[in-house]
Amino acid sequence: MSGYRIISADDHVQEPKDMWQKRVPAKLRDRAPKVVKVDGGDVWMLEGQVVMKMGMNVAAGKKFEEYKLEGETYETIRPGAFDPHERLKDMDTDGVDGEVLFPNAFWAFMVEDQELQLACMRAYNDFLVEFCQTNPRRLIGIGLIPADNVDEAVREAQRVAKLGMRGVLVSSFPKSGPLSSEVFDPLWAAAQDLGLPIHLHLAVGDTRGKVFTEQRNVRGLMPGQILINSMGNLEALARLLFGGVGELFPKLKIVSVEGNIGWIPYFLERADRIYQRHRHWSRLELPMPPSEYFHRQVYATFIQDHAGIRLRDLIGVDNLMWSSDYPHTDTTWPNSVKSIEETLNGVPEDEKRKIAGGNAARLYGLS
Amino acid sequence: MSGYRIISADDHVQEPKDMWQKRVPAKLRDRAPKVVKVDGGDVWMLEGQVVMKMGMNVAAGKKFEEYKLEGETYETIRPGAFDPHERLKDMDTDGVDGEVLFPNAFWAFMVEDQELQLACMRAYNDFLVEFCQTNPRRLIGIGLIPADNVDEAVREAQRVAKLGMRGVLVSSFPKSGPLSSEVFDPLWAAAQDLGLPIHLHLAVGDTRGKVFTEQRNVRGLMPGQILINSMGNLEALARLLFGGVGELFPKLKIVSVEGNIGWIPYFLERADRIYQRHRHWSRLELPMPPSEYFHRQVYATFIQDHAGIRLRDLIGVDNLMWSSDYPHTDTTWPNSVKSIEETLNGVPEDEKRKIAGGNAARLYGLS
Repeated sequence: MSGYRIISADDHVQEPKDMWQKRVPAKLRDRAPKVVKVDGGDVWMLEGQVVMKMGMNVAAGKKFEEYKLEGETYETIRPGAFDPHERLKDMDTDGVDGEVLFPNAFWAFMVEDQELQLACMRAYNDFLVEFCQTNPRRLIGIGLIPADNVDEAVREAQRVAKLGMRGVLVSSFPKSGPLSSEVFDPLWAAAQDLGLPIHLHLAVGDTRGKVFTEQRNVRGLMPGQILINSMGNLEALARLLFGGVGELFPKLKIVSVEGNIGWIPYFLERADRIYQRHRHWSRLELPMPPSEYFHRQVYATFIQDHAGIRLRDLIGVDNLMWSSDYPHTDTTWPNSVKSIEETLNGVPEDEKRKIAGGNAARLYGLS
Repeated sequence: MSGYRIISADDHVQEPKDMWQKRVPAKLRDRAPKVVKVDGGDVWMLEGQVVMKMGMNVAAGKKFEEYKLEGETYETIRPGAFDPHERLKDMDTDGVDGEVLFPNAFWAFMVEDQELQLACMRAYNDFLVEFCQTNPRRLIGIGLIPADNVDEAVREAQRVAKLGMRGVLVSSFPKSGPLSSEVFDPLWAAAQDLGLPIHLHLAVGDTRGKVFTEQRNVRGLMPGQILINSMGNLEALARLLFGGVGELFPKLKIVSVEGNIGWIPYFLERADRIYQRHRHWSRLELPMPPSEYFHRQVYATFIQDHAGIRLRDLIGVDNLMWSSDYPHTDTTWPNSVKSIEETLNGVPEDEKRKIAGGNAARLYGLS
């Protein structure tokens, strides 16, 4: 892939140990998340609950045999997970020019207390802006937005845009109703005006993940759940497209993150057939079939996905973005270039350039 | 398609008006479902609740513009929906040689009282056996099984096998736990011994359908939900395959019904990648990757699905079965032959024969 610009459109930062304690306003500090040791592993606690274990989300560099659900610490993981200078070195090792950065702290979207939630998200956004300033040409930050309070969501979107962030991450399953609800229109309007793509990320806001703790002893349940979780992006996109968000906000960009792409040709074909057969009785006010909004406004990231690449003409070659998912268990690090070559084997050069980085550069306005 | 044997692997019977009242044991008759008129439409009531409206499930022959959620009656729908002689005429019109028959009464899987549930299912099974006796070479009956009481489930499976039924339909989301739970092993063992494929049908046992009544005023929610519902089959298959059911019962056949197929290449590729990366920490006891069990034991029906047909080599040409879904809204009736030709355009003749009917004939032992 020499001569290619390689941009990974989905990677994660493991928030540093002292991050929230250092940045959350003094009056909320006692309630802000802290790291504690449990059975030798680092664990994040919030208001008496375990909200994140160190394991699956910080696996880069481990062998598959060493992957674990819990029990890692800030000392046993790659420092590139939380230190921007180390991150840049790991990107060099991997042959990756740029990374679009998401949190590990998905729990932030589930915090019930809105004041505490906003404080945690703002602290993270401030931290990530600094993280990216280490090399703003290579590190692209996406801000967290508390969608359940739309006024605050709009204000935070405006704030992170001013700070130079390139997009916002929202809950795929807001507590205040389906994403298609008009309640969220002011947020989509603001994101469109600010030129901030909205991001739907696997498992964000998705309560189905609870099965991991509640039924972990059922045979094969946890690996099956990992597969099922990737369908959360399909659900969120179905809500947005059938809800007319693409029609109402024609310049809004929507990114499906870490959901992979092999299901998208089915999704679009099925969506258009439903449009054809069910728009009359359901009084669907969409002048075009859902696939047209998708091709115009939706981007999707994938890690390794041969089925999706074979049917890329049905998704749109301009809509696809490769990602490494560092430092999660799916990551291709440190063999990303080899993995891209293998996944895109036989794909014409101009399409390869788009998928490996060109589309991300265009979407995020990277020079 | 002249000279082809065309078998539709997923069709539905609208249970006749007097069916349960005629067949449920006397002591339960008061509690058994009845048809009442509501706002001019026929509605099925059970224990004071509306459990089925006549609309979407009896749409065959209507124009898309005429489809409706409710308000049809036994007089406004095609008699082929409930009368076997009329059904055979509708099959002739459509060029369909055989049909595999499922109920419209999905509510039966949600009945809380186990005695009442079993009585309703037995009554339906007895009815369907008679329905199919009108022409047993063309009408293939699938029995309903109350999976939440496994002893009764095994007994009912044995009973319907004796009555000549060719498979059993189970809830994809049993109330007593995920399908992968060992609780259900005696049922899989019995189905394997009896040579009865188990069927997972779209929306059966799936509480997500409730969104239709609870949030029907949210923009675009209902058509979006139709799309999301087809993913229930993915979830059920993920549970069974990762739960080792294919490994434990190597001759058990599993059929994904009305879930379509375009998502299956993604599903299998993703399942195998999860197997590769996550089987160690999760102590998954599967000697083969999930896709191998799928190719050996799983069949899937589709109505129209170009994405799936393009990637049929990844699913398995021997695992695919076309269906018309008569009399539901997705049905290709009365243009099924034309629809098959269009969907299978460019597919080699031997593969067409399998997909249009050969695979179903083999699976159900049709001479």
